[in-house]
Formats: sequence, structure tokens, C-alpha cells
Amino acid sequence: MLDEIIINQLQAIVGKDNVLIGSVNLTTYSYDATADVPHAMPEVIVMPTSTAQVRKVVQLAAWKSIAIYPRGAGTNLSGGTIPLDHGIVLSLQKMDQIVEIDAENLTATVQPGVVIQDLNNAIAPFGLMYPPDPGTVTTATMGGSVAENSGGLRGLKYGVTKHYVMGMEVVLANGNSVRFGGKTVKNVTAYDFSSLFVGSEGTLGIIVEITCKLLPEPKFHKAMLAAFNVMEDAGKTVSDIIKAQVIPATLEIMDNMTIRTVEDFAHVGLPTDAAALLLIEVDGMAELVVAQEADAVIRIVEENHGSLHIANSDEERDNLWSARRAALPALASLNNTVVLEDATVPRSRVTDMLLALAEIGRKYRLVLGTFGHAGDGNLHPTILADKYNADEMSRVHQAVEEIFATALKLGGTLSGEHGIGIAKMRFLGNEIGDSGLELMQTIKNALDPTHMLNPGKLIPREEKTHVSR
Amino acid sequence: MLDEIIINQLQAIVGKDNVLIGSVNLTTYSYDATADVPHAMPEVIVMPTSTAQVRKVVQLAAWKSIAIYPRGAGTNLSGGTIPLDHGIVLSLQKMDQIVEIDAENLTATVQPGVVIQDLNNAIAPFGLMYPPDPGTVTTATMGGSVAENSGGLRGLKYGVTKHYVMGMEVVLANGNSVRFGGKTVKNVTAYDFSSLFVGSEGTLGIIVEITCKLLPEPKFHKAMLAAFNVMEDAGKTVSDIIKAQVIPATLEIMDNMTIRTVEDFAHVGLPTDAAALLLIEVDGMAELVVAQEADAVIRIVEENHGSLHIANSDEERDNLWSARRAALPALASLNNTVVLEDATVPRSRVTDMLLALAEIGRKYRLVLGTFGHAGDGNLHPTILADKYNADEMSRVHQAVEEIFATALKLGGTLSGEHGIGIAKMRFLGNEIGDSGLELMQTIKNALDPTHMLNPGKLIPREEKTHVSR
Repeated sequence: MLDEIIINQLQAIVGKDNVLIGSVNLTTYSYDATADVPHAMPEVIVMPTSTAQVRKVVQLAAWKSIAIYPRGAGTNLSGGTIPLDHGIVLSLQKMDQIVEIDAENLTATVQPGVVIQDLNNAIAPFGLMYPPDPGTVTTATMGGSVAENSGGLRGLKYGVTKHYVMGMEVVLANGNSVRFGGKTVKNVTAYDFSSLFVGSEGTLGIIVEITCKLLPEPKFHKAMLAAFNVMEDAGKTVSDIIKAQVIPATLEIMDNMTIRTVEDFAHVGLPTDAAALLLIEVDGMAELVVAQEADAVIRIVEENHGSLHIANSDEERDNLWSARRAALPALASLNNTVVLEDATVPRSRVTDMLLALAEIGRKYRLVLGTFGHAGDGNLHPTILADKYNADEMSRVHQAVEEIFATALKLGGTLSGEHGIGIAKMRFLGNEIGDSGLELMQTIKNALDPTHMLNPGKLIPREEKTHVSR
Repeated sequence: MLDEIIINQLQAIVGKDNVLIGSVNLTTYSYDATADVPHAMPEVIVMPTSTAQVRKVVQLAAWKSIAIYPRGAGTNLSGGTIPLDHGIVLSLQKMDQIVEIDAENLTATVQPGVVIQDLNNAIAPFGLMYPPDPGTVTTATMGGSVAENSGGLRGLKYGVTKHYVMGMEVVLANGNSVRFGGKTVKNVTAYDFSSLFVGSEGTLGIIVEITCKLLPEPKFHKAMLAAFNVMEDAGKTVSDIIKAQVIPATLEIMDNMTIRTVEDFAHVGLPTDAAALLLIEVDGMAELVVAQEADAVIRIVEENHGSLHIANSDEERDNLWSARRAALPALASLNNTVVLEDATVPRSRVTDMLLALAEIGRKYRLVLGTFGHAGDGNLHPTILADKYNADEMSRVHQAVEEIFATALKLGGTLSGEHGIGIAKMRFLGNEIGDSGLELMQTIKNALDPTHMLNPGKLIPREEKTHVSR
């Protein structure tokens, strides 16, 4: 528990109502959406409402050597917000203003606490959209998703969060606030700090304002569901679509286990005997082009022995996407622990990865379903387990290790969109090597020499703690 | 002059033929394409042919405290390659292999010495293109353009170099080589080091391999030339096109002075009495959409009192682009010093900037022409001067200062695509402030504590040396 004097000082900075203590509050902020990582109690939750307040909190914490854990909505999936060293949870949720919508320059400037969907609602009247689309778009905040470099369902065509961040203001560990980037498409003044802070998981500074790029909302779209009896046919369909140079907005896969679970949960009429489903949506500004792309997809699905269902109304389209979005909650309803991974491979290796995942499930006798963003190689193998069954959890951990090793062997990465956080920290060296780990430490030590910001995340506390291959 | 022992050691590392000395060689590498910056003689030019050689050269230089100046083709426009502290010019031009073209994953992996156009030629048979398109595409190297984060003519629709770099290998000042990123569209493993090194101007490490994203080459394009009697009409056409949510591949402007100079130089039949020309090209995969976009552009040009010339053949299209590409050489032929700036503003402020630039030319009694990438706000005000006329050069420097101040006042940036180098270093603090400068120093000191890599560039040698506003 923090000294009462410090609590008083925090109250003086942000106001009494914006400082939360008491065990109910502390427990609420002791965990996030991640399964199978330790929980930890913060000593206080501080909810600043301005950049000036953030700076003062950081200065106080630096002076008193208290850890700061920045937090948005806590939807992250790698344990990134858990206050391992206790200290201060700095919730940015009250900094929730949309500062500016600049339709002429296709930019928006927002505070970190703005919920992604709220930004999209605000820009819709201008015919604009903010493309990054994590599954948690209705609750996740802009600050959290920038800090985690969120991906989501539209990554294949539209890219990820980092492709939409043009500038930001950050409060550093030394209490300085710095602005970089801006509204120009081209900017080579100084290092590309915006990109360094995107995906830095709160370990280098606290993001207090974001200028992001917007796009015109596509006027036409066509959603389709393709069912396959053989997994390889689904995988080949994915690569054939890309090879045909058709780039769908979304190209999602569900394996049989996910299909059955979603159908049990949501009763949307999915074909429960299919080995795999693809959910495909093409979109664009020209009706004809969208129709041509849809035709190309239909032809490729049929060539690969898939059976098609085409959404002929907005309602049918919404149904398809509800089914996809139900995948995680449906799986989560089956057991008390859902280990959701996001090992990612180059898109040409998606079939290999899908087959390897099924084999890993069998090998370790686990309930393992896979869904995810097949189009960009970002799959979500999901293991359901009972955390009170030590033997099963040990097999889960072995399986996860093998999943990571397989992704790397196929030229992929440990994490496509969930981040490293606590969950994947010990595997980091397997991907980036000792000199990569050293470079991580160098950057961290330079910007946050006392490791005050989100300590225990992303960067191993000791060098070279990675698991040998 | 370096000790003979060191020359011998360098020869042992890279081979005798790859170590150049002698005054002709040293003079050749004492300058680059930038006007009005100091030249400086290197002590030796070293041309490694492998990453292992680069590491050994760096280790030797670190041990002997010799500065290293990495260099591609020397086409940069901010003095970024000039060996201010003498030492070693490390030319990467002999590391010129295309390591892999992976058409299935839409990526290429190249060594830094590959010329951009050579990459484009190699991928053309696959129907692919590498979109970043600096004016010097036929000579500039991939390494140089990544280190400078080159922009170019297609920035509006396709973005700049940083949007196409997916991964790289870098040799650090400590002699380590590190790989990061890769072929996956999504990758949140570790900090986004690729983005940190893109545009770092050789001050943080030496890029020895690059994995870049490719795009399908658009199958259709339509190029047009629009002439305007009034500059404001040209400016309004640019913003009306963007407002109509038509995103041309290129949207270039030339002012009257540039038009007349190009016409004198290249005799392509430009209307020399026009106040401004726009060169506009729309492109895409669907003929109908390209035609529709062209129609929209034509309507907007006519609404703004422009007169149109539409390229009806590939030859006519090539002629238009030759005229645009002739702008710089044409202007350069007029006097002995061509100060080419790239102050950049949000696209909604392009007209304001064009008018301000004309006024600055008048105010300082200078020959100032402007051309550039109107669509992305990246203008190239170009001042022609006689470097032997001290009074005129002093007015040039005042004008440049006012150009930068105006760009910042309009919400823009010092440099859209040419970089900071030597040329804009003293203005850097005006944009990023003291805490931004301090952050630059922090990163530089962390990665290159002895300032061995490209010293004297991008980061002011002493803190807070920026010009007050």
C-alpha cells in the first residue's frame, strides 16, 4: 500500500474522484483479458484528465520510485496491463476527447481514452473510416490499441494500427512531453518516433494524444461464406485468392472445432460437418469492381471444392460477421481457461500452419480450435483447458511452445497482433536473438533508465533469459 | 590520412580492389547531390561485399575511433553522405544482390546496393511493383532510399518508403548484426525497429539487407495535364480532387517559372503563359474505375477554369512525365547553385503555401520556382543563385529560413522527403522542440555512444542549437 502522503499528492494532481483505492477497485485492475498469466494488485488507480496531470503523476512516480502501469480498456491478450510490481495503474480512460476531425486532410486527432468504435461513429457522417479493426473494437481504446499495435479483421487489405498513426504526443519517463509527426503524408523530420511508440506496450512512454489517418469508407461490399470438407482446400483457396491479386478486406478462417462451438453457442446455421469455413468480404468504391472481385473469389472457391453461401442482404452479412465475432466468446464458454495465441506466418504458409496446429492439438491431447485472419497469415490457435488440472496445463504450455517454434520455422513471428507482454516474453530471444534482446534493452534503458514504465513487460528483466530452441 | 596499417587492415577485410584512396577517388566521395552544404574529403572509401565484412569494418573503426559514413548512390538532397569528420566512406554499392523475389507473399529481399529501378525491372515479369518512386529512381539505391525514407511522385496514393519496409538486417555500432521484422503483414514482436532505422540517415546503424512489400502493378492509367491562369485555381483543383475522394497516383504541380524553364530546356510544348500546371495520373486495376476517376478529375479541372490536355497514348504519357522529371535538371541548368527545398504542408494548405512561396521569392529578390507533389503537400521551392554572390546567398538563407517557418506555421514539416542531414539540422528544434531534440540525442547516444556513425548529421552535435522562431 502506498504511503498516505503519496495518495494525497496524487489526489491533489488529478482530483479526489480520480484516485481509486480499496480492495474492490484494486482487484478490478489486477488483471486483463489475458488467460494463464499472473494477476497482481496495484496500489492505486489514477485517472488523469489532461496531459499536464499525466506529466505530474510521472514526475511524482519517478521521484518516489513507483512503477506506472498505463492502461486503456484492458482488452489486451498478452498480460500487458497487469501491475506486476504493484504501484500505480494509470488509466487513460477519462482522456476520451476527439480533439479534431479534419475531413479535408483525412485525419483525426484523439485522446488515448477514445474507444475505437466511438471514433468510427464520429467520422462516419464524413464518409470516413479508421480501418484498424480489432475484435474488441467496441470497447478497446485508441491509446491501448496504438500501444499494442492492434491488427484485426481488415489487416490483409488495410494494414494494422501502425499504418494509420501519423503523429502523437507522448509523456516520457523523465516527465517531458514530446510531439512528433503530424498531418503531412510525408515527414522525414527526426527519427520516426511515432512508429517506435506504436506497439511499445507502454514501456517507453505514455501516449497522451494521437493523430491518425482516415480513409474514405468503401461504398460497396460483398460477403461470402465458403465451406470445405478438407482443410487443405481451404488453405489453397486462401493462397489462390492472393495469387489472383484479389485483396479481400477480410479473409477469415474457422476450423471444425470452432465451427461446432460457435454453432452450439450462437445458432447461426453454420455447417457443423465442414472441416473449415472461410468468411470472405471484398469491398471497394466501384460496384462493378467489387462484383468482379466477388466473381473471382467464387470461381476460386468452386475450383477448390468449396460450397458457397453469399450474403444477399445487410442482415445476412451481419449474421456472418456475428458468427465470426462469436468465435472467441463461444470457445471461452467451454472451459475455465482459454489460451488464445496469435502466432503468425507468411500467407503462403497458412495451410502448413493449420495442419501443424491440428497435429499439435492431437499430440498433446488438447482441445485446440483455430480461427483467425487467414489472409494475412495471422491465426488464432485457441486451447481450452482447466486451470485446476496441472497435468493438462503442463501440456498446454508444451503445446504453446511448439506452436511458437513452428511459426518461426515457417518464417513467421511469435505475435502478429497481441503483443509480447508477459505471455511471450521468454520466447522473444528465439525470434530476435541475443543481439535483438540487447537492442531492446538498450532502447528501454535509454528512455526509461529506472524501468518505471510497465516494468516486467515485453523486455525480459534479465538478459538472455530466452528459451533455447 | 589514415595510418597505412589501418588501410592494410581494411584491405584484408574487403580485398584490395574494394579500398579506394588517392585524391581523385577521395574527391569523388567528398560531396553528394546537395547544393550549398560544405564538402569534406574522406580518408578512404571501403566497398564491402558482405554483411560479415561490414561488421569487421565497423569493429575496426570502433576500435580505432574512426568515423564511418555509409553511402549508397549519393543522390540525397540534405548533405546526408558528406564525410564531415573525414574517416571512412562505406559504400554499399557492391552489395547489390536481389536475394529473393517471393511473388506469393508479395515481398522482395534485397541487399542495400540494389538500384530501385533494377528491383522494379526484376519484379515486373511477376506483375509487381515497388511503389516508392523518388525522382532519382534510376540511380538511387534501396539502402540509401530506406535510410532517407524516400518519398517521390506516388506518395499521395501509395505512401513512402517506410510503408514498404517489412524487415531488415542492420549492423549496429557495437558490431552486432540484428534482424527484425519479416514477411508477415502483422508483426508485433519487439519494438518496431525497422521503422526506427527507416529514415535514420545512417546515424543508428548500417542497413545490410531489406525485406520490402510489393504491390500488384496497376493495369490501367490515365495521365492528364491541366493548365491554369491563376495559381489559386490550381490549388483549389488539388483540394477539390481530394475532397471528391479521388486519390490519383500522382498529382504534381509546376509554377510559371518552372514551366518556362522546363520548356526552354526540353521543348515539350508546355503552355509557357500558364500560372501553374497540374500533372495528374489516375491508375487502378479496373478500366472502368480509372475512366470514372479520370472523368471526375476532368470535371473538377473544368470547374476551376483549367484547360486540359489528356495523354491518349503511352508516348504522350511518357512525354508528360519527362517534362515533370526535367524540372530539376532544367532549373539546375540556370545557375551554379540550386537550393532545392521540400518543406511540406497538410494538403489542405497547399494553396496557402504556394502563394507564400511566391511572396518569399519577391521579398528576397530571388529566382524562386516551385514544383512538386501537390497532392501530398510536399512542394519543392527551388532557388537559383550564384554561390559567388555573397549578398544573394545571404538572401537565399533568409528565404529558406522563412520557407521553413511558413511550413511549420501551416501545420507542416521541415522536410517531407529529403531528410535533415546537414542542411536542416539547425532548424530541427523549431519543429520538435527541446524535448524532441533531447529524445533524438538519447536514442543516438544509446545506439551509437561514440557518435561514430555518420557524425554531424540529423542530430545537432550540441543540444539546443536550434534557431529561435
